[in-house]
Amino acid sequence: MKLTETTIAEKNIYKGKVIELNIQEVELPNKKIANREIVKHPGGVAVLAYEDKDTILMVQQFRKAIDKGIYEIPAGKLEYGEDIEACGRRELEEETGYKAEKFTYLGKIVTSPGFCNEYIYLYKAEELYKGELNTDEDEFINVIKFKVDTVKEMIKRGDIIDAKSICAFMMI
Amino acid sequence: MKLTETTIAEKNIYKGKVIELNIQEVELPNKKIANREIVKHPGGVAVLAYEDKDTILMVQQFRKAIDKGIYEIPAGKLEYGEDIEACGRRELEEETGYKAEKFTYLGKIVTSPGFCNEYIYLYKAEELYKGELNTDEDEFINVIKFKVDTVKEMIKRGDIIDAKSICAFMMI
Repeated sequence: MKLTETTIAEKNIYKGKVIELNIQEVELPNKKIANREIVKHPGGVAVLAYEDKDTILMVQQFRKAIDKGIYEIPAGKLEYGEDIEACGRRELEEETGYKAEKFTYLGKIVTSPGFCNEYIYLYKAEELYKGELNTDEDEFINVIKFKVDTVKEMIKRGDIIDAKSICAFMMI
Repeated sequence: MKLTETTIAEKNIYKGKVIELNIQEVELPNKKIANREIVKHPGGVAVLAYEDKDTILMVQQFRKAIDKGIYEIPAGKLEYGEDIEACGRRELEEETGYKAEKFTYLGKIVTSPGFCNEYIYLYKAEELYKGELNTDEDEFINVIKFKVDTVKEMIKRGDIIDAKSICAFMMI
C-alpha cells in the first residue's frame, strides 16, 4: 500500500528560539483530508565520547520539559546551515571541555516522528584531549565519567532514559 | 552543582489534538531568568512483539513530520488517564491484528527532553494470537515481519532510524 501524505496547506502557529509549530493540512492515501501538528526543530548532534576504551563521558543536566535532571551523552542543537560533525565537535568541547582526535559517524535517529522533524546525528569520539569548557549562558551541566558496562546496566535498570544516549549504544 | 530550574510563569500558546505548546519562564540555578519552549505530549507505548524467538513485527508508516515512510515497532499515544499496559496491548492489536499472552515491561525513555515531556513506555510481547486489526481513520500502516538479526543489521546500516524502536533492542 502506498502510504504517502501530501501537504495541501501549512500554517505557522509559533516561531520560537528552539522550535516552530506548524499545522499542515494533508491528503491521506485514501484521499481524505487530515490535519497534522508538526514541531520543527533544527536537529542535533550527540557524541559518545570515550576517555579510554572502557570509560565514557556523560553530562547530567536539568531538563525543564520533564522537570528532572537526567544523564545524557554530550549533545546540542544544530545551528541552521552548520556542518554536522563541526556541531558535534563544538558541543563536545563546550559541554565537557574535551576535543577529540578521532570522530566517527555512527548513524542518525528520529526522536518523535509522529509530530516532530528532529533528527539527531550520533558520533563516537576517541583520543580526547583538553579543550575549553564553555556552556551556554542558560545551560548548567555536571560532567561525569562512567564505565561502559555501568552505563549498559543503568540503561537496563532505568537510570538512563534518554533515547539518543541509549540509541548510541546500539550503534557501536 | 544543584541544577534545578523553577517555573515562575507559564503561558499556553497552542492546544491541539496531539500536542500542546507552552512557554515557561524559569529561574535558573544562577537566579537568572530564561524562557523554555515546552511541547506537552501525552506520552506513548511501544511494543517489541515476537512472533517467535527470532521474528518480530514491525510497521511501516508514513510520518508527515519527516515526509518519509519508516519502520517502527508498533506504538501509539496514551489517552489521558489510560493504563499504560492496556494502551500497549490496544495499539499492538489495532496496528498488527495480534494480541499477546505475555506482555513484559522493558523500561521507559524520554525522546526529546530538551523541549518535550514525551515518555515512551516499552514492552515486550510474546505468545501472540489473532485479534482484530483496527487502525485509526487517519493511520495507514503496512505490517512486516523481520528476523531479529536483520533488524539489528538494519539499525547499524541506518535503515531503521526510529529512536523508540532502537531503544527497545537495548532493553531486551
